[in-house]
Amino acid sequence: MIESNTITVVKIGGNVMDDPLKLQVFLKLFVAIDGQKILVHGGGKIATTIGNRLGIESKYVAGRRLTDKATLDLVTMVYGGLLNKQIVAALQALGCQAMGLSGADGNSILAKRREATEIDYGFVGDVSERGVNTAFLLSLIQSGIVPVIAPLTHDGKGSLLNSNADSITQAVATALSQVRATRIIFCFEKSGVLLDPNDETSVIQKINATNFQELKESGRITDGMIPKLSNAITAIEAGVSTVVIGQAEELPQLIDGSKGTQIT
Amino acid sequence: MIESNTITVVKIGGNVMDDPLKLQVFLKLFVAIDGQKILVHGGGKIATTIGNRLGIESKYVAGRRLTDKATLDLVTMVYGGLLNKQIVAALQALGCQAMGLSGADGNSILAKRREATEIDYGFVGDVSERGVNTAFLLSLIQSGIVPVIAPLTHDGKGSLLNSNADSITQAVATALSQVRATRIIFCFEKSGVLLDPNDETSVIQKINATNFQELKESGRITDGMIPKLSNAITAIEAGVSTVVIGQAEELPQLIDGSKGTQIT
Repeated sequence: MIESNTITVVKIGGNVMDDPLKLQVFLKLFVAIDGQKILVHGGGKIATTIGNRLGIESKYVAGRRLTDKATLDLVTMVYGGLLNKQIVAALQALGCQAMGLSGADGNSILAKRREATEIDYGFVGDVSERGVNTAFLLSLIQSGIVPVIAPLTHDGKGSLLNSNADSITQAVATALSQVRATRIIFCFEKSGVLLDPNDETSVIQKINATNFQELKESGRITDGMIPKLSNAITAIEAGVSTVVIGQAEELPQLIDGSKGTQIT
Repeated sequence: MIESNTITVVKIGGNVMDDPLKLQVFLKLFVAIDGQKILVHGGGKIATTIGNRLGIESKYVAGRRLTDKATLDLVTMVYGGLLNKQIVAALQALGCQAMGLSGADGNSILAKRREATEIDYGFVGDVSERGVNTAFLLSLIQSGIVPVIAPLTHDGKGSLLNSNADSITQAVATALSQVRATRIIFCFEKSGVLLDPNDETSVIQKINATNFQELKESGRITDGMIPKLSNAITAIEAGVSTVVIGQAEELPQLIDGSKGTQIT
């Protein structure tokens, strides 16, 4: 049961970010969502493409980009500039009062730079709901603004940080859920969490913390899905009303609960 | 005489944008300005440097960059992403509640794409005070936010546009001056408008519309200064209280009137 004043936090990521037509379809569906809402976007592959042209090599450890200074500047340009402003301009053309934010803007998301251990991730920021400026975000959405958040945070000492968009979504929604009913919709190119990654009809309709452990231990869910599901379960346990994972083009069905994977 | 509730609109541009140490000094002085304020920043040379590395040629006609789609994406990345977010993160570290904006964000500045005549400037937006979302900017500054505006606008149809930062400064200040006392401080690397461009002591203390005509006709003022002074005089004629042009490091003296060129 969704309260009428629920805040909807939508994450858009995956291949949709690299396909202008699919992104436009998704943005129209996003605009049609009733009530107050926030969009968090991922990075897509364009940062790697532009990085290659600039001679900046993309390095990953365990699915996380290592962020040296050149890479931080690259993602600041691509995530905070190119993608964020293109999405905002597209939403404005659809009549949505969108406003782009990095975590530095309005001090909206303060993160902790990840400490170097055997791996130095560089300018990577770990986020939690404690770093979210809930009052600031609420004041924006209560005045009719739709925040569009890039996957960038800051350390409060003058440096931007590269942060995971799923983690930002979880932190923002958890922080808001302390004062208002809040739900999360994670959108990407797949129909939901799949039992068989090659079969779009194998969507798992509901996952809870126990199922998640079993799925993880059985090796049935793939690398990219594990942090997404961890974020989803953390959010539910911390007070977020509903989390749904599914396909961007099916956003209305994800919202009405008829498609995608529900995290309970 | 400056009213205590005057809004100060500061433009920072020129070589200061390309010198991190000078920029940091300037930002500290900016933070120290009393009262509500807005920062508008230019682009600097870094867009050209990064454009060269990406194989995007910079083309100018009469001092204006021609903006094809590749160049629009470049300036969206560099102005709206890299420079804007770096300035915002630096201001936040100084305790200033800064928030970055392109003209698309919150529909803050709607511009008109310049029509192609013998020259097609491409994605260049001409701004006027009519395109400024005064209510939105006022609501931000009244809630304690310091807007940091990149030289990007939008056409309301989904496209960003490249706009001149001096013209944005003039349009924003003129729009605000209709409802609140507003002043402009144009900061760059020179001590003011110089009678002899090679002599930093030849600052012209005051210029009015008549002087400006004479200076222009005598060929005494250089190319880059003409649009800046035109913008200044337009602003004064339209209701802006004070316009001062001078050196970024002398911001307090520009504000107290002891340095720089006053436009009257």
